[in-house]
Amino acid sequence: MKKACKPCSEAAKIWMQIPAPKRGDIVRQIGDALRAKLQQLGRLVSLEMGKILPEGIGEVQEIIDMCDFAVGLSRQLNGSIIPSERPNHMMLEVWNPLGIVGVITAFNFPCAVLGWNACLALVCGNCVMNHRKGAPTTPLVTIAMTKLVASVLEKNDLPGAIFTSFCGGAEIGQAIAKDTRIPLVSFTGSSKVGLMVQRTVNERFGKCLLELSGNNAIIVMDDADIQLAVRSVLFAAVGTAGQRCTTCRRLLLHESIYQKVLDQLLDVYKQVKIGDPLEKGTLLGPLHTSASRKNFEKGMEIIKSQGGKILTGGSVVESEGNFVQPTIVEISSNAPAVKEELFAPVLYVMKFQTLKEAIEINNSVPQGLSSSIFTRKPEVIFQWIGPHGSDCGIVNVNIPTNGAEIGGAFGGEKATGGGREAGSDSWKQYMRRSTCTINYGNELPLAQGINFG
Amino acid sequence: MKKACKPCSEAAKIWMQIPAPKRGDIVRQIGDALRAKLQQLGRLVSLEMGKILPEGIGEVQEIIDMCDFAVGLSRQLNGSIIPSERPNHMMLEVWNPLGIVGVITAFNFPCAVLGWNACLALVCGNCVMNHRKGAPTTPLVTIAMTKLVASVLEKNDLPGAIFTSFCGGAEIGQAIAKDTRIPLVSFTGSSKVGLMVQRTVNERFGKCLLELSGNNAIIVMDDADIQLAVRSVLFAAVGTAGQRCTTCRRLLLHESIYQKVLDQLLDVYKQVKIGDPLEKGTLLGPLHTSASRKNFEKGMEIIKSQGGKILTGGSVVESEGNFVQPTIVEISSNAPAVKEELFAPVLYVMKFQTLKEAIEINNSVPQGLSSSIFTRKPEVIFQWIGPHGSDCGIVNVNIPTNGAEIGGAFGGEKATGGGREAGSDSWKQYMRRSTCTINYGNELPLAQGINFG
Amino acid sequence: MKKACKPCSEAAKIWMQIPAPKRGDIVRQIGDALRAKLQQLGRLVSLEMGKILPEGIGEVQEIIDMCDFAVGLSRQLNGSIIPSERPNHMMLEVWNPLGIVGVITAFNFPCAVLGWNACLALVCGNCVMNHRKGAPTTPLVTIAMTKLVASVLEKNDLPGAIFTSFCGGAEIGQAIAKDTRIPLVSFTGSSKVGLMVQRTVNERFGKCLLELSGNNAIIVMDDADIQLAVRSVLFAAVGTAGQRCTTCRRLLLHESIYQKVLDQLLDVYKQVKIGDPLEKGTLLGPLHTSASRKNFEKGMEIIKSQGGKILTGGSVVESEGNFVQPTIVEISSNAPAVKEELFAPVLYVMKFQTLKEAIEINNSVPQGLSSSIFTRKPEVIFQWIGPHGSDCGIVNVNIPTNGAEIGGAFGGEKATGGGREAGSDSWKQYMRRSTCTINYGNELPLAQGINFG
Amino acid sequence: MKKACKPCSEAAKIWMQIPAPKRGDIVRQIGDALRAKLQQLGRLVSLEMGKILPEGIGEVQEIIDMCDFAVGLSRQLNGSIIPSERPNHMMLEVWNPLGIVGVITAFNFPCAVLGWNACLALVCGNCVMNHRKGAPTTPLVTIAMTKLVASVLEKNDLPGAIFTSFCGGAEIGQAIAKDTRIPLVSFTGSSKVGLMVQRTVNERFGKCLLELSGNNAIIVMDDADIQLAVRSVLFAAVGTAGQRCTTCRRLLLHESIYQKVLDQLLDVYKQVKIGDPLEKGTLLGPLHTSASRKNFEKGMEIIKSQGGKILTGGSVVESEGNFVQPTIVEISSNAPAVKEELFAPVLYVMKFQTLKEAIEINNSVPQGLSSSIFTRKPEVIFQWIGPHGSDCGIVNVNIPTNGAEIGGAFGGEKATGGGREAGSDSWKQYMRRSTCTINYGNELPLAQGINFG
Repeated sequence: MKKACKPCSEAAKIWMQIPAPKRGDIVRQIGDALRAKLQQLGRLVSLEMGKILPEGIGEVQEIIDMCDFAVGLSRQLNGSIIPSERPNHMMLEVWNPLGIVGVITAFNFPCAVLGWNACLALVCGNCVMNHRKGAPTTPLVTIAMTKLVASVLEKNDLPGAIFTSFCGGAEIGQAIAKDTRIPLVSFTGSSKVGLMVQRTVNERFGKCLLELSGNNAIIVMDDADIQLAVRSVLFAAVGTAGQRCTTCRRLLLHESIYQKVLDQLLDVYKQVKIGDPLEKGTLLGPLHTSASRKNFEKGMEIIKSQGGKILTGGSVVESEGNFVQPTIVEISSNAPAVKEELFAPVLYVMKFQTLKEAIEINNSVPQGLSSSIFTRKPEVIFQWIGPHGSDCGIVNVNIPTNGAEIGGAFGGEKATGGGREAGSDSWKQYMRRSTCTINYGNELPLAQGINFG
Repeated sequence: MKKACKPCSEAAKIWMQIPAPKRGDIVRQIGDALRAKLQQLGRLVSLEMGKILPEGIGEVQEIIDMCDFAVGLSRQLNGSIIPSERPNHMMLEVWNPLGIVGVITAFNFPCAVLGWNACLALVCGNCVMNHRKGAPTTPLVTIAMTKLVASVLEKNDLPGAIFTSFCGGAEIGQAIAKDTRIPLVSFTGSSKVGLMVQRTVNERFGKCLLELSGNNAIIVMDDADIQLAVRSVLFAAVGTAGQRCTTCRRLLLHESIYQKVLDQLLDVYKQVKIGDPLEKGTLLGPLHTSASRKNFEKGMEIIKSQGGKILTGGSVVESEGNFVQPTIVEISSNAPAVKEELFAPVLYVMKFQTLKEAIEINNSVPQGLSSSIFTRKPEVIFQWIGPHGSDCGIVNVNIPTNGAEIGGAFGGEKATGGGREAGSDSWKQYMRRSTCTINYGNELPLAQGINFG
Repeated sequence: MKKACKPCSEAAKIWMQIPAPKRGDIVRQIGDALRAKLQQLGRLVSLEMGKILPEGIGEVQEIIDMCDFAVGLSRQLNGSIIPSERPNHMMLEVWNPLGIVGVITAFNFPCAVLGWNACLALVCGNCVMNHRKGAPTTPLVTIAMTKLVASVLEKNDLPGAIFTSFCGGAEIGQAIAKDTRIPLVSFTGSSKVGLMVQRTVNERFGKCLLELSGNNAIIVMDDADIQLAVRSVLFAAVGTAGQRCTTCRRLLLHESIYQKVLDQLLDVYKQVKIGDPLEKGTLLGPLHTSASRKNFEKGMEIIKSQGGKILTGGSVVESEGNFVQPTIVEISSNAPAVKEELFAPVLYVMKFQTLKEAIEINNSVPQGLSSSIFTRKPEVIFQWIGPHGSDCGIVNVNIPTNGAEIGGAFGGEKATGGGREAGSDSWKQYMRRSTCTINYGNELPLAQGINFG
Repeated sequence: MKKACKPCSEAAKIWMQIPAPKRGDIVRQIGDALRAKLQQLGRLVSLEMGKILPEGIGEVQEIIDMCDFAVGLSRQLNGSIIPSERPNHMMLEVWNPLGIVGVITAFNFPCAVLGWNACLALVCGNCVMNHRKGAPTTPLVTIAMTKLVASVLEKNDLPGAIFTSFCGGAEIGQAIAKDTRIPLVSFTGSSKVGLMVQRTVNERFGKCLLELSGNNAIIVMDDADIQLAVRSVLFAAVGTAGQRCTTCRRLLLHESIYQKVLDQLLDVYKQVKIGDPLEKGTLLGPLHTSASRKNFEKGMEIIKSQGGKILTGGSVVESEGNFVQPTIVEISSNAPAVKEELFAPVLYVMKFQTLKEAIEINNSVPQGLSSSIFTRKPEVIFQWIGPHGSDCGIVNVNIPTNGAEIGGAFGGEKATGGGREAGSDSWKQYMRRSTCTINYGNELPLAQGINFG
């Protein structure tokens, strides 16, 4: 790692001098290179990670979308000119590149999370040092992407070190966290590890962009379109085998429609086709590793010991892969298990009587990533998105907790870490801001009208 | 502290429901109440803190300016409507209040720093819990301000707990740092303590806004307006007895004008009138405490032991107050003393040959708050504010390192902590952002064109 | 007028040089001066214009709000720094003052419209030449305001010509329209006169900001809160005796609630107290002039001749003042009278079957100022504010067509003229924008990669 | 034309319903289609219009850049959420498509101007009706582009009428100007015709985006880099045979370097290779038509009659094409000829003594498009871009008047018409803005605290 950082530092000096719109054009070429390999990369994601093919392709599409978005952004990394209170002074707010951005990503989105970070980091003038964290279980997609990017850089006579990837153990992540040449570390993973990375980075006065655990609820109000809600819960709870940070883990049902929704849900859960993720029609592929499967089994034990009642699923599937059943558990919102993120297709169902109560349950977990409500009442919608509503970074209405668009800022509050990726002004985290005041006159008037000497 | 947090929490529920422009009107009334007491409060600052009267009044003026600014802001805490890629969907980026903001401030700006934070926190819909940190040496100004604010709140039938102040020991700061009911802690002080506060707040998944140590350089190029530079250095190095976070601590002189600038500087240093800060004509009041004076004496010893040559000053003034001489030291940019912030009117002078070298020295310290260059060449100005220029949060040209306007964002990078206060989009740190997607149709199209089930 | 323009031109040179935040402080003082006279000015508006006292005071409050808003704005008239595609180039978007802004206002808002324009024009660095248009029927309020402003300017050693008012005939308006020293003319009045002013100003390559006729509809859907709707219609149709540009002139009722709403409305119309606008409890004061009353009578004739059926009112009140009855007319949406603005408390009621039909009727008039819908269905709300919804500049839900807040942009499309006043980025109309590219290097790279010579 | 507007209206209903990011993807495909034909289209521009090949290719590159930029923009056509002063109210500023945008373009930029307009109009949700104005002298490029766009639209199952082109006479332009189904007409051409179009469009309450005549000056200060200045003047005055709206027509030289610059300029003018624009090395192709050549000849007569002294050039070239000599004329800044735009490579040279005088001359013409200064003094640079500086829309430093980047807003003030195209917030002109206030509560609080009834 240390050796790799040197050429990256050298490359950074070159890259940050290239005008942003030219950097944007490189990112456009990267997008085109990915677009030409969309199907192949999608299959590779599916194969390595285990998610079903439409999701694998969707993930690659997401980086391509990010590339297109970043191209436009490369002409809009705007600073501000702010009126100065002093004559013959100009105040400017200027955004400059950071240098190198470390990107530590997780197995579940081997493409998209890197893409979000890399596209923005690159147009903002930074080099990227990528580390696929933990056991190196998805190396091929990383290698394929790195090669594609390298070929574009080389075609433009630029050093390949602008985009460097590592597929190694935790020691690489630690080295990135400690390296003072890396002013920003973008980390995606658990709240626990994220907190440790943050501490290490902060101690050397670096910055973190954290995308940590989610524990996302869907609230179904009594006036909801139940069919829409049931479809959404299925996608949000079972999709990617429950291994998205935005997976729905908690389902809060108004008492008046509790049984109705549950019955429909149990019905569709029965029809979920489990199997080869590359096969058409499969909705639920395997968990990523055997450790994940064991974790699921352990989770089931804990749930039961805390009073959870398994309504469907609850077991691993006897087969060669790491398949588990899609699971629904009836449980109290106060059970300790409900406060934690179990990375598997397990959904906790609970009942509520009032909107206020539902929002309190929604906000009662340490995490604050995503949340959804199903309703048709404007007063409920606006309360939900207002000061006394959901405390999450993503606050949806009549759509699932997962499946964000790149145009908005993606990320969450509290134990989710507070970072924002993709759209809106997320790019600002990849740059440093200076407030510049230029005196082009001959006098020295002081702010706040002070006289000195 | 714990007891005080309860009424503050209750008050927060009320305050965040009040429409922002109405909150702005309360802040306007606070501004008017301060304006009516400008002279008195200014004297009080001067008396307690030790800064000269024009600076004491300037500091109060700064909160008044912030109040006026915040009133306008109360109608501009704008979210965004972002085009959704899905038909019948609307994507909104909404900003909501946090609840309670803890503000831990330092002795040197008893009014302004609280004002910056409180004005923004209040219009953003938050209650403020203020703690004047360390030894309670400036309690009167805090008490006076708190009373003024309370009287405005009461006149408007609002709970006084919206704005709560503590004048106590470090245990109060720790309690604020640990309290999970306080999502944001704004801390002004040393890098060392700031880092500890940050760790405590992060461990409970809270956020910090840090304004930590500065170690600010002024670069004087060979083409500079030397008279302007000398006046600026005097104000930046001697003003507030060197006890500003933006105090100029390092002076980088181009070799060709080194002696000339130094001679002029030594000349004006001799004329600095030391004495009662309330007296007209005084430029240098006492240090804040006897501990500060001891710290100065210890600093002088260290400087000498590291090869520093004292060109003027270097001693305490034999008198009843904590007066010290304005001091200029010739020293290598590599001396360890130069990397640290000595909170006293001590200026390190060094020589350079090229702009590149000067910028490297400027950026070679852990802190990254403020910096200035004196030059009349556009190519130097634009390099200085560009990717290979100063790495500070404040990057000035032909003005001192201190004396920021409230319209810009105030704060610094690296060991200075990364927070931004006052103008620009600093208010966003006092709010939480949600990316809200509302589906008002009957269908469930997924992002990235995914098909599921 | 010509003579007055000279000192105004001289004053403009001084005023535009004053830093914007200092200009903001002057506007703050103007706001405070108005606040001190709120009740008196409100009574004067009521007395001269004829609107009821709460509306008179509300109008003065609106300028005060604008002053407060403009103070904040004076530190936020931000330009942009845009990334250049060329190395060693910086691209800036700079906003500069225009010089003089001509403001031609109407009788019905003698304070507010001037205030909207003047506050923005002043902080943007422009002098104001105000002309109260048509018969000089509201001179006292203009004189009072001008004196207040002058006293503030003088107290600050600034020329009074920064704010100049004329109370004269149409020839003054024409002189303003023709004067090449006035780059922007802000005109409030009828579409017919506005069009003429626009042509005159355009011929000399000046710009117009037009706030012309409105013809505003309220749609009540079958699911509406009828009580809320009826109260809103009353305020929107009868308030200010129907002499607001945002007065509701057309009421579109879903057939299923047509009779119910109408019955309630006829009931409240009967209780409207007509009389002295200064008296407590009065809801409907006189029309502004006897010409207005005659116009009302003529309008009634036309309405009847086009098949309109008068359900209540329809006559002048026999008394000394220019009082008329609040009137409701049942009429076809195709009647020519419905396409025009009759400046009196006359409301056209019509029936519709579908949302699509209601929106078509709403959009079928030449004017495009304000519009409201009453409904509780999100799909209706979002369609109403979307691409196939209302084509007006103001698009409300569950509130009347009138009573805008200053934080948003006020104005309308089509024959309403397209101008925007008050909040949002309305200030940009009062400034000129330059796209500045600064080459601080030694080379001459061309955009789009062109080689020349 | 009338017939064509019908399918365009139908297409508009479909197009504006498509989510903006999907529209962006169509524009991306158009960009790719153009990119694949860059060389061919560039040659076609060169062949038809007469500009040299690098400029022909540069022009096509500019639309491609605009497409890339517009793709990003399609996720950033952001509205605002503005804090409401009323509880349970939300204020939104929403941007919606206009429907159809008429684009009337000129011969000199057959590709770029259409591209600027079409890219923005399309992502904003509008259909485009394009008219290449005047004599149909560049029909092939229009036809080629229209076919490319049509093929992309059809591949996506969209109606070709979304992008409609006409190559006809002035009657088509008039029909567009009069058609009430076209809310916005973007016109590029002379100030005289532009004014007529504007009047026609305004009479039917439509809007215009005008890009009219320029009369652009370059100022060379005594401290300027003369080599840079001379190269810039050559490109700005001779490029495109003086047929750019941003062509430099006036050269203002400080008296101290007057002769030196002039000598160097006369020297390079001699070396300008006149000839076949497709041939390598040619710098000056023919004028566009024989009418243009006649106009040049007439211009020379007028110049002489007004005291102009021809220093070089001044004649047509005896050959088959419409070639004329690159011409430099010494003339008073007050000569009437200097106030007008002669569309040919004719440069007026004049002398000045002070910056103030130079800026006065720069601003003394009716047009306000582009302007440049050559200097190395910050105080001159900042005065030039400030309130008392250039009154043009484009204000350059150390680069020519022509050759704008797409990231900034392109356009000018005064007789240039005030429109802005390409980057920054130019897209807003292609949309209509609504200020929407939604009451989701049960009460009816009024703005400005008014009580009614």
